[in-house]
Amino acid sequence: MKTLAFYLLLFSTLIACNNKSTSTEKQTTSIQSLTSQKKIIDLSHTYSDKTIYWVTSKEFTLDTVFKGQTDKGYYYSANNFCTAEHGGTHIDAPIHFAENGQTVDEIPLEKLIGHAIKIDVSSKAANNPDYLVSIEDFLDWEKSQGTTIPDGSIVLLQTGFSKYYPDKIKYLGTDERGEHAVKLLHFPGLSPDAATWLIQNRNINSIGIDTPSIDYGQSEYFKSHVILLEEDIPAFENLTNLDKLPLNGFDIIALPMKIEGGTGAPLRIIAMVTN
Amino acid sequence: MKTLAFYLLLFSTLIACNNKSTSTEKQTTSIQSLTSQKKIIDLSHTYSDKTIYWVTSKEFTLDTVFKGQTDKGYYYSANNFCTAEHGGTHIDAPIHFAENGQTVDEIPLEKLIGHAIKIDVSSKAANNPDYLVSIEDFLDWEKSQGTTIPDGSIVLLQTGFSKYYPDKIKYLGTDERGEHAVKLLHFPGLSPDAATWLIQNRNINSIGIDTPSIDYGQSEYFKSHVILLEEDIPAFENLTNLDKLPLNGFDIIALPMKIEGGTGAPLRIIAMVTN
Ligand SMILES: [Zn+2]
Ligand SMILES: [Zn+2]
Repeated sequence: MKTLAFYLLLFSTLIACNNKSTSTEKQTTSIQSLTSQKKIIDLSHTYSDKTIYWVTSKEFTLDTVFKGQTDKGYYYSANNFCTAEHGGTHIDAPIHFAENGQTVDEIPLEKLIGHAIKIDVSSKAANNPDYLVSIEDFLDWEKSQGTTIPDGSIVLLQTGFSKYYPDKIKYLGTDERGEHAVKLLHFPGLSPDAATWLIQNRNINSIGIDTPSIDYGQSEYFKSHVILLEEDIPAFENLTNLDKLPLNGFDIIALPMKIEGGTGAPLRIIAMVTN
Repeated sequence: MKTLAFYLLLFSTLIACNNKSTSTEKQTTSIQSLTSQKKIIDLSHTYSDKTIYWVTSKEFTLDTVFKGQTDKGYYYSANNFCTAEHGGTHIDAPIHFAENGQTVDEIPLEKLIGHAIKIDVSSKAANNPDYLVSIEDFLDWEKSQGTTIPDGSIVLLQTGFSKYYPDKIKYLGTDERGEHAVKLLHFPGLSPDAATWLIQNRNINSIGIDTPSIDYGQSEYFKSHVILLEEDIPAFENLTNLDKLPLNGFDIIALPMKIEGGTGAPLRIIAMVTN
């Protein structure tokens, strides 16, 4: 009986081992773990003249430098562009709201790459554009998953608002622009209480949301920004495709443009989900 | 003897299995494979007023929008920036030199993420800024590694020139700017013969180099660009830290800014190397 159990253990371990493609006889082993068994999901909107910016921010512009046949006989095309650091799918570096915080080029890559979880409040936010993600939403996730939020997690907040992107009235609450339009903003965010709870009770690496800001549209003092960024926890904003992610057990790779001294930057962010 | 061999095989498989941390009892399994056992190496230069651009291209500019205490009592800082798509560490999308090629937002992420190899020609290029990476350099790599270049590889060319960055005279061959300065460019690149050999005989996903261009400085017709981009093989340019990579057995994650219709874009590119 003992021998049989031993064989079964060995055999099942072998199978588990094979399932994970850990065989080392192939040159390509390291790839397998990165892509072969993972589905890549792009959580980034494109940059274009439709890209959503803060109502007081400079929007994205692209200028064609050249496009067509050159006199040397080859085709060539190239553009210039201008943008605010904070617009479209982007990262807030700590220095955006924390005077001595890290600039975007100083954020350790280890805070931007790793295991992630998702808090889904989309049903609660569906009829409430001023919805605030609460401490209870995090506790509910922990109860449902039978674990506290793992140390070093990247935490994504799914409000469902990305489905409105880039319709400014539905996504931002207004299509007006300028200082007066700030008061017209309506979209969900993270409550300052929940931000404080997160930094005092859990140990997360970074946070992201599928709305224009980690603070909700009606925020006046951007307290959730201040609370998180003062702890060097970067925030990803204007994410998309969060509905394609599970609640747990996936990885995030978030790579911002490396702007020296940047307070934020355009961000390409992807999830790797086990098939 | 047969039984012993069988046990040894089982045992060594178990060890290999454990070394790869494939146990599934922990919530954090997926992370382990991504980061815990890997060292992350940043292959990207920062963007600043020192960033190297083509001698005819618009350079990077950053403008402060706000920096300091707001009248609401919180600190805030934000910038705007302008840049050419092609400058600093960036990607060339196929459409840069191929009329019907993919734009940067259309490049499948699967071509930008995965296993990579490195061809080191730095000793040959050290005293020859016009060095062209040759077919023989690829064959030498294959001989030394005992394998052909694996299908789906990301191929990095290390000329050693990133050590001169951002010294324009050493890195580009000139610190002059404008149309007349194009003839003064001297830095290594990939020979068109080797580009043709690669697309006809191997099956690579993308290619990168630690110089300003996949074609060498003295190129007149940018033939290596045309050959590669017409096959939808994107090119990464102005890479750094290639000296920190092994010749084989590591992964690349290259995430460009997602510019709709872009011919290229700023690129954040990292390597994951087994510790
Ligand atoms: Zn922001
Ligand atoms: Zn380029």
